[in-house]
Amino acid sequence: MKQYPKSLGKLINELSKLPGIGDKTAQRLAFHVLSLSDKEAEALADAVVEAKHTLKYCSCCGNFTDKDPCDICADKERRQDVICVVESPKDVVAIERVGEYDGKYHVLHGVISAMEGIGPEDINLKSLITRLQNSEVQELIIATNPTIEGEATATYLARLIKPAGIKVTRIANGIPVGGDLEFTDRVTLLKAIEGRREI
Amino acid sequence: MKQYPKSLGKLINELSKLPGIGDKTAQRLAFHVLSLSDKEAEALADAVVEAKHTLKYCSCCGNFTDKDPCDICADKERRQDVICVVESPKDVVAIERVGEYDGKYHVLHGVISAMEGIGPEDINLKSLITRLQNSEVQELIIATNPTIEGEATATYLARLIKPAGIKVTRIANGIPVGGDLEFTDRVTLLKAIEGRREI
Repeated sequence: MKQYPKSLGKLINELSKLPGIGDKTAQRLAFHVLSLSDKEAEALADAVVEAKHTLKYCSCCGNFTDKDPCDICADKERRQDVICVVESPKDVVAIERVGEYDGKYHVLHGVISAMEGIGPEDINLKSLITRLQNSEVQELIIATNPTIEGEATATYLARLIKPAGIKVTRIANGIPVGGDLEFTDRVTLLKAIEGRREI
Repeated sequence: MKQYPKSLGKLINELSKLPGIGDKTAQRLAFHVLSLSDKEAEALADAVVEAKHTLKYCSCCGNFTDKDPCDICADKERRQDVICVVESPKDVVAIERVGEYDGKYHVLHGVISAMEGIGPEDINLKSLITRLQNSEVQELIIATNPTIEGEATATYLARLIKPAGIKVTRIANGIPVGGDLEFTDRVTLLKAIEGRREI
């Protein structure tokens, strides 16, 4: 059975290594690549290599950046007194998309997980402590995901940082907007009730 | 709002041009690329460029190939007397995966479509006629998709080629194996009844 010419098989194989891309999708993408013009295919390949080569972690906040410090850290217009702590660069994108938050960020690149043997020293925590020591930060918003590990990390951070007199807050749990009480799980509903606010 | 560094935005943009890849998936893939080693990212980029550069259409059957004629056309072990006509190279892969068919192929790269103004001269048909004239082909299996255009193309081919004394067959329509009569559409069920065979 000769399914694919060699270079096509190689492309499908490379594409299928991407997350969420199965064999079928990889095949579809590969055939799409073949239907591109040479210029378009090279633009795709170049974008991969260029992004990989130019993007580093910001030495201040740990986010991906092509300059150091990153645009957000360097932005004097943004509030200097509040840092939002997130698990990954994707979370920065999500919060920036809301367009309301104008403080700084700190990207942990992971969470503390006893199960997976990830301790506080394995995530980007040391630089956060250094940042807090040399700054006018008043509030730390912990925006790790509402998972067991995310909560554990939030608790750890709160215990570590509160004694320094910095306010530590946690983003709210509750029913998503447009969600349905009937289909909301028990724990979320409990959190939603606990977190109720006067209207 | 500074969502992405420039080269990351570019990569996300390039990835989101791929079929079935929305903004969210493109972002996820881009972050995955950043998590790769330099070597892995380059392997991906190289595979794109290499596939694009080395793969051409086989001058005989029209399938993608890195040599001309392609492996299937050049294979003397395969039957020379039957050609399976398909819409796209993906269909060759699908049939080869079954592992039963050992004749040749012809890839039309499309179907006749009055709606989209695609006539017989716009698909890879001329080279099929030339092939038939110079060969010992006894049977042409039309394996275009069971869509309006696929059927129209099949009918067109049958009318064109039958007079030359070549047997023209069409792959069967019916209920997919593991499918359910209850949820089968009317036309498929009709075709399944029409196509019934003695057991």
